[in-house]
Amino acid sequence: MNLISPVREINWTQSEKKIARRVFESALSRQLASITARTKQMLEDDSADVWAVHDYLTQQRKEIDRVYDYRYSMLIFVFARLLRDGWVRESDLDGLSREKVNEIQHIARIR
Amino acid sequence: MNLISPVREINWTQSEKKIARRVFESALSRQLASITARTKQMLEDDSADVWAVHDYLTQQRKEIDRVYDYRYSMLIFVFARLLRDGWVRESDLDGLSREKVNEIQHIARIR
Repeated sequence: MNLISPVREINWTQSEKKIARRVFESALSRQLASITARTKQMLEDDSADVWAVHDYLTQQRKEIDRVYDYRYSMLIFVFARLLRDGWVRESDLDGLSREKVNEIQHIARIR
Repeated sequence: MNLISPVREINWTQSEKKIARRVFESALSRQLASITARTKQMLEDDSADVWAVHDYLTQQRKEIDRVYDYRYSMLIFVFARLLRDGWVRESDLDGLSREKVNEIQHIARIR
């Protein structure tokens, strides 16, 4: 497979940039909805420890801040990570070049 | 009024120590229940921002850690603060010496 080298400039067309923004925002929305649902679930328990909820949110926030990096030089890696973790679906990537999709899928498998 | 000086040693009898512990724990339970309820309420909103919830909990946790100081030298001030804020009720203080109750009430009014 002819893989994109992380060090060379990756070109994103205008239409790909629009798709990338949508993919990024959708994944973030899904993940935030999941964190919100989990937080509610933790609070349902009558013996809920509200500081355990706080610890959970602190950890999730750090993780989200770390992963969601919207730089065009990073997006292939970001999408690969999110694909692997299930926040991005293969069909979300429709409209990106075959080369980019291959790269994202490849990195998702090996990381 | 003959007020206890903050610098002089305040004597707590064994029975007062038991009451103090109960007052302290009850106030903390009430306040944590209130924080939990508020957190749930914030999450009820469909447009809930889970990081706003996280910020709220961070701030509340700092405040709780700061206020709830179970040192006998500090308890009069802690209880005064909690009385003023409504987490301790006057009736909770039954069984403490008249001098201590007066002092707590006095500080609660002036702070």
